[in-house]
Amino acid sequence: MKLGFVGLGKMGAGMAGNLLKAGHEVKVYNRTREKASALEKHGAEVADSPAAAARNVDAVFTMLADDQALGQVVYGENGILAGLGASACHISSSTIGVAFSRKLAEQHAEAGKDYISAPVFGRPDAAENKRLIVVAAGDPKSVERFTPLFDAMGRRTFVIGGEPWHANALKLSGNFMIASMLETFSEAFTTLRKAGIDHKRFLEVIIELFGSPVYQNYGTVIAEQRFNTPGQGFGLKLGLKDVRLVCEFAESVEAPMPVATLIRNHFVSAMANGQEALDWSSLELVVARAAGLSDKR
Amino acid sequence: MKLGFVGLGKMGAGMAGNLLKAGHEVKVYNRTREKASALEKHGAEVADSPAAAARNVDAVFTMLADDQALGQVVYGENGILAGLGASACHISSSTIGVAFSRKLAEQHAEAGKDYISAPVFGRPDAAENKRLIVVAAGDPKSVERFTPLFDAMGRRTFVIGGEPWHANALKLSGNFMIASMLETFSEAFTTLRKAGIDHKRFLEVIIELFGSPVYQNYGTVIAEQRFNTPGQGFGLKLGLKDVRLVCEFAESVEAPMPVATLIRNHFVSAMANGQEALDWSSLELVVARAAGLSDKR
Amino acid sequence: MKLGFVGLGKMGAGMAGNLLKAGHEVKVYNRTREKASALEKHGAEVADSPAAAARNVDAVFTMLADDQALGQVVYGENGILAGLGASACHISSSTIGVAFSRKLAEQHAEAGKDYISAPVFGRPDAAENKRLIVVAAGDPKSVERFTPLFDAMGRRTFVIGGEPWHANALKLSGNFMIASMLETFSEAFTTLRKAGIDHKRFLEVIIELFGSPVYQNYGTVIAEQRFNTPGQGFGLKLGLKDVRLVCEFAESVEAPMPVATLIRNHFVSAMANGQEALDWSSLELVVARAAGLSDKR
Amino acid sequence: MKLGFVGLGKMGAGMAGNLLKAGHEVKVYNRTREKASALEKHGAEVADSPAAAARNVDAVFTMLADDQALGQVVYGENGILAGLGASACHISSSTIGVAFSRKLAEQHAEAGKDYISAPVFGRPDAAENKRLIVVAAGDPKSVERFTPLFDAMGRRTFVIGGEPWHANALKLSGNFMIASMLETFSEAFTTLRKAGIDHKRFLEVIIELFGSPVYQNYGTVIAEQRFNTPGQGFGLKLGLKDVRLVCEFAESVEAPMPVATLIRNHFVSAMANGQEALDWSSLELVVARAAGLSDKR
Repeated sequence: MKLGFVGLGKMGAGMAGNLLKAGHEVKVYNRTREKASALEKHGAEVADSPAAAARNVDAVFTMLADDQALGQVVYGENGILAGLGASACHISSSTIGVAFSRKLAEQHAEAGKDYISAPVFGRPDAAENKRLIVVAAGDPKSVERFTPLFDAMGRRTFVIGGEPWHANALKLSGNFMIASMLETFSEAFTTLRKAGIDHKRFLEVIIELFGSPVYQNYGTVIAEQRFNTPGQGFGLKLGLKDVRLVCEFAESVEAPMPVATLIRNHFVSAMANGQEALDWSSLELVVARAAGLSDKR
Repeated sequence: MKLGFVGLGKMGAGMAGNLLKAGHEVKVYNRTREKASALEKHGAEVADSPAAAARNVDAVFTMLADDQALGQVVYGENGILAGLGASACHISSSTIGVAFSRKLAEQHAEAGKDYISAPVFGRPDAAENKRLIVVAAGDPKSVERFTPLFDAMGRRTFVIGGEPWHANALKLSGNFMIASMLETFSEAFTTLRKAGIDHKRFLEVIIELFGSPVYQNYGTVIAEQRFNTPGQGFGLKLGLKDVRLVCEFAESVEAPMPVATLIRNHFVSAMANGQEALDWSSLELVVARAAGLSDKR
Repeated sequence: MKLGFVGLGKMGAGMAGNLLKAGHEVKVYNRTREKASALEKHGAEVADSPAAAARNVDAVFTMLADDQALGQVVYGENGILAGLGASACHISSSTIGVAFSRKLAEQHAEAGKDYISAPVFGRPDAAENKRLIVVAAGDPKSVERFTPLFDAMGRRTFVIGGEPWHANALKLSGNFMIASMLETFSEAFTTLRKAGIDHKRFLEVIIELFGSPVYQNYGTVIAEQRFNTPGQGFGLKLGLKDVRLVCEFAESVEAPMPVATLIRNHFVSAMANGQEALDWSSLELVVARAAGLSDKR
Repeated sequence: MKLGFVGLGKMGAGMAGNLLKAGHEVKVYNRTREKASALEKHGAEVADSPAAAARNVDAVFTMLADDQALGQVVYGENGILAGLGASACHISSSTIGVAFSRKLAEQHAEAGKDYISAPVFGRPDAAENKRLIVVAAGDPKSVERFTPLFDAMGRRTFVIGGEPWHANALKLSGNFMIASMLETFSEAFTTLRKAGIDHKRFLEVIIELFGSPVYQNYGTVIAEQRFNTPGQGFGLKLGLKDVRLVCEFAESVEAPMPVATLIRNHFVSAMANGQEALDWSSLELVVARAAGLSDKR
């Protein structure tokens, strides 16, 4: 297929690379051009604007940091909506808010264009190694048509019936599940450390108990306090953004989520204590600090 | 070896059965005698008192519901401390409080007797099918001597260095990890249900994402609200007890655990709303109720 | 002075009435005209639009329910910004968000117009009886000029140095103090009721202890569960709005407010359980319900 | 009347002094004798033991720090129960737990002795200046008989019908109301400080709004961070103890108190960060620290 890809950050670069490997033609656009150029040697064509990346393609992917960044490449004369052809599809993979996703779906429909939400689970190494989980929702025929693209980027694709925003709601809820695990590890490790008990031994038990790679990976990161992971990892500010979006979504349907709001407060505390550049698993430092454990950073 | 086993509830019956299958001589005691008699056909000898079960054995196991129930079989003229021989060991597998475990270790030491903490992870079916995880702590030589017993009851044994109460602290912290997962599932499912999104589809994504049998099992129970599981499962009252013990342990080492205390409140709310006889995963009903979802029980 | 007043709800009607009593000329506007007409007999002139109310006056007051409602009377060809003269002042008394207040200040400055924030504390009876507390911030000369107006509406005026949004931040923080008191009463009363202790006797002790009319008034309302107060009182939906604005303000300055977020969740639960039309003190029902106390409404 | 008074700390010394001023004969006992001797010049007789203070009196007051300290003067051969005459009354003014108060009532009844709970509200200066609020519960005739004593110590006496423990439950609930106010002030001040807004100006508004001396006093202490008040004030460790007792009481009647548990966590954090010797209003430091405000102590 002829594709566009806008947003070549840590996640997008890997995803676009896998689309190229799968044999598709891909026009790529990134605000800082170097990241786009890096894909040229793998066969990508570098576009000068989001509109250019969206012109004359079957589908254009977007993978941006947040609602605002996505809005900047969608709207305006150089934006995706301006460039996208009548029968073409905008596949939005960013982790954005439910309200914004609903608005995008409406705006694309009004413009006679197709819109699919296809957010992904996985960190940058999973994006590179085709190990993402893709959750796709939108017009069933359209989703079916593009499923080979999702399969080219990840280890498994879940097609969700219903509106595109359902996929965003699921993605946000999944990130909440992970964030909650981070908080839980933080509280358990902190208490054990204060009791003089080896929290890494505890982690071994938990790894056996849950049998989950996610517990193993994040548990190890937190146990060893390896929070400074530039280029890889998932930034704390993005973690706060996602939990905020979960809370806003929950409030919009009148569902209290006390653990989500608690974690949101902890992320705010992390920001206030200078952890913006660390991985979101550095949530642990907030819990440890409250327990009087000194900050070794 | 010659063994005693006191406490033949849903967990203890399976554990004692596996010790018998492994070829050990086991004297069993239970407050209601029928449960003890049921093990006679598998070769157990029924004892008339905890003291009798502890007499002339290498080790006596205890598997009771809580601190109080354990205290009732340990103390007094018919208690384990009275019956246990000088070189014999009391292996305590109950999920008890850290403070009580410390006290028991002291009292056994004063009486010249051995004391090991060896709490287990797993539900009744895991106890029966030798799938428990055992966490053992105590005198290293003694723990080494009895490790074959632990291996006979479970799929894996973790020997924790240090004081017996360390094993109890780990067990309680592990249960907190599970309880936290229950709360997290409850919040995510509730919000998705209120949004009109299929929460069972979400569960499939989460099962793929975490790759954990624990997430799969509990997630399915909660998604289907199968909370009425007499004879199996883990009662809500025991869940409250465990989270209370975690909180008390944390406070004793001056470590705040905000999610643990939040869950404790939710378990209290569950008790107040008549969920005492349900599985602890019925925590979900507390979250759903707060979101205005009617109680279908 | 020549004044305009836009927004004649439960609060605005009393405030405009007191400006009239103080001898000022007041042009009033309300979306539903009847409320404006009711002030005609007290000397008000009824305007056909917000712009008309703002034309040829020294200052125009606005007293609307929320950011959105205020935006609707400020913007557009019939809006206040369109009607307000060059040297005239928009005095915003609504409880709005800090971010929106900042934006309004900028927009008025750009348009060469004056903008003061002067939110008020007090319920409708206090508005009517000139018992409000006014918190005013803006250009010092301008605030000084209009202070007689504030004094005409309330029992006391606090002039806050600094930007207009400071007054909004103070107002929101004050409402948080009250909301927190509501939650605290709810928790104490609920626990005492469950213990079989007369919570109204407890209230007498608290009234003596705190010596605060606010504690006396709200404490009595909650103790007697008199939450259905149409025409008077402060609606639960507005309470949720205010706590949400507090939380957003706090997050914008990276300050976690755990009690504020807890109360926000409780208001969300109240909405989910059909309390939208009740007074915000019906927060109590959320706490009581979690404790298994049946809903007598 | 002939009275005994056991426990002459910051509170007890003032209370005993006022009983002496009212013309009663008072035998006083304190673990460290100096504090007892200080009252000799005001006419007190110094007793050698709690039992001696309780012998041949109409009533003996106790005012100790916590359950444990009270237990130490009640039990044993030199304890109050041993010394107290058959028709005499033990008036317990300490802030103790509900469960312990129930137990004391039973034990006194079994021993044929009278027991009244009469905890007090007020800080040491209120104890000295006869400004306490006394909440008394017990046998109605007995409470009536001793009411002049309560009136001699405070500005107002509330006689609560029902069991002695009801008075303790009310006292604990009242302290929760105050602790909640401390937390609320802390969150509001912290957010305003981070926003660059004068939180002392906010305090003035709040003082006007609530019209409460308690808000004025504590609000000022917190705004000025005057937490180091040896000899006066109410220690943080006692604050934690009281909130813990509230939580235990609430859990015993199956009532969740989320703000109480949140504050409990904050007090634990305060202990973990070395605030044990500060006033309980130093709760503010926990909130400020989470918001990244540096500790100026």
